[in-house]
Amino acid sequence: MGKAEFTQEKVIARVVNLFQENMPFNQLLGVRFVVEDDSIRLEVPWDDKLTGNPLQKILHGGVTASLLDTIGGLTAILNAVKQTQERHLPALVDRLPNMGTVDMRVDYLRPGRGKLFIATAQIIRQGSRVAVCRMELHNERGDHIAFGTGTYMLA
Amino acid sequence: MGKAEFTQEKVIARVVNLFQENMPFNQLLGVRFVVEDDSIRLEVPWDDKLTGNPLQKILHGGVTASLLDTIGGLTAILNAVKQTQERHLPALVDRLPNMGTVDMRVDYLRPGRGKLFIATAQIIRQGSRVAVCRMELHNERGDHIAFGTGTYMLA
Amino acid sequence: MGKAEFTQEKVIARVVNLFQENMPFNQLLGVRFVVEDDSIRLEVPWDDKLTGNPLQKILHGGVTASLLDTIGGLTAILNAVKQTQERHLPALVDRLPNMGTVDMRVDYLRPGRGKLFIATAQIIRQGSRVAVCRMELHNERGDHIAFGTGTYMLA
Amino acid sequence: MGKAEFTQEKVIARVVNLFQENMPFNQLLGVRFVVEDDSIRLEVPWDDKLTGNPLQKILHGGVTASLLDTIGGLTAILNAVKQTQERHLPALVDRLPNMGTVDMRVDYLRPGRGKLFIATAQIIRQGSRVAVCRMELHNERGDHIAFGTGTYMLA
Repeated sequence: MGKAEFTQEKVIARVVNLFQENMPFNQLLGVRFVVEDDSIRLEVPWDDKLTGNPLQKILHGGVTASLLDTIGGLTAILNAVKQTQERHLPALVDRLPNMGTVDMRVDYLRPGRGKLFIATAQIIRQGSRVAVCRMELHNERGDHIAFGTGTYMLA
Repeated sequence: MGKAEFTQEKVIARVVNLFQENMPFNQLLGVRFVVEDDSIRLEVPWDDKLTGNPLQKILHGGVTASLLDTIGGLTAILNAVKQTQERHLPALVDRLPNMGTVDMRVDYLRPGRGKLFIATAQIIRQGSRVAVCRMELHNERGDHIAFGTGTYMLA
Repeated sequence: MGKAEFTQEKVIARVVNLFQENMPFNQLLGVRFVVEDDSIRLEVPWDDKLTGNPLQKILHGGVTASLLDTIGGLTAILNAVKQTQERHLPALVDRLPNMGTVDMRVDYLRPGRGKLFIATAQIIRQGSRVAVCRMELHNERGDHIAFGTGTYMLA
Repeated sequence: MGKAEFTQEKVIARVVNLFQENMPFNQLLGVRFVVEDDSIRLEVPWDDKLTGNPLQKILHGGVTASLLDTIGGLTAILNAVKQTQERHLPALVDRLPNMGTVDMRVDYLRPGRGKLFIATAQIIRQGSRVAVCRMELHNERGDHIAFGTGTYMLA
């Protein structure tokens, strides 16, 4: 990126693109990244390959955990970008490869049944080094499937 | 299963088979279930499709969570089988579809690099209704990649 | 209790009384139990003896964890009472001594400063055997000090 | 502290003293800090005021959480001191007031019965900014009462 490209908007687009196009496991899961106004969410259509419990045709708990971890980490990074002055954005971009999940809790509320799964997140603690997010997974009917809480390293 | 088939050994074989052959997401990840003596572990060879961070070629955090959740749940069920008298095994088998993860914590210790990933678990609390496991993920060199703690509903 | 005393209202009053009057540690912390309509909350006035970090005069993290655990467990029990038919209440009361926390996560959002601390909880998963609650701690100005998530055994 | 006093040994003694003498809540609980060779542990004798469940005379879950949080945080700080060169110790001491718990999970394994409770911790992830510990609580007979996992901010 040339220096002129380090606007918040461009860095956000770059991070979303990185998650969507360059993380093979997100593609394997069939994750779509939907950006609207000031928020981002993940959408994953049901696919038989994501089945955990074949007796009941429900999502594998690992898929739920994967979606919650992904939306939590992405939200933490995008929020950090929004709180960073443009002249400090190049340094933030340099740190991207070192950002990652420190720990995560998933609470499974009900069986993961549905045609489309939607993962959302909100920041509950934003520091310059560590952010904490709460995440949720719903299906297309609004059934609440899981909660998550994740702690992410930003620097 | 006829009544004669409800020995602990046969129920264990049946549960392992269920996890290995009938959970499509475990097959998508390439999970192998290795039973040795009294213990069970998961092994997953590195595959590019499991990549989370392409800049560093490391495992997606969701893969780590999936493996820890799977070995924790499987270990909780197998331990319940071992503690159940044969005459009560049919009732336990009937409850299998309702068993599942209540909550899980994952602690990411270091980047998920390696050629082979091994997931193990041990029971830390075994009740008739709820079990709690601690899980670990290592690579083929013995590097400790992640810890997990999971609470599982058995009835 | 005579049989006539097993109404939901009386059992709720009995459980709250048990937490308030018969748990010495809650009294040591100075916990007040405030019942209003359909909800219950804990209130604890600042007291120097609850100080964790003397350099900054903030609440000890253990006090925060204690309040979140207490309101989570109490809410889980009261909700179970509300969902139990009167004829089954005596059996529920018999199980009270065996109810307890299976696991809890606390997220510390900001320093525990204030004159009065208020702990609240809501059920996110209610089963007959296990309930999961989310808990919050605020101070008198509405500053959000901590989140909690707890899994409670009911039977 | 004069410059000469910033040896690892003296900083460790100072931190332990801070936890033991200047955190009123630790004194309220009756916590003793026992340093032996390279390790530290907490010891708390049973006291009726710590009772959570009076029907069974067991420790309040909040006491367990308090002890695990305290030993985890203390261990994280002491380990950071040991990994810091003497010339950087003054900067570390300056940051002490800002160190604290980010999040913690407690797993309650069995009722907290006993005459003496012993809390220990070990580091599972040590970074310059964040450390993760696993903690344990036992009684004087070696019964394992609880596990904890805590993430601590160091800078």
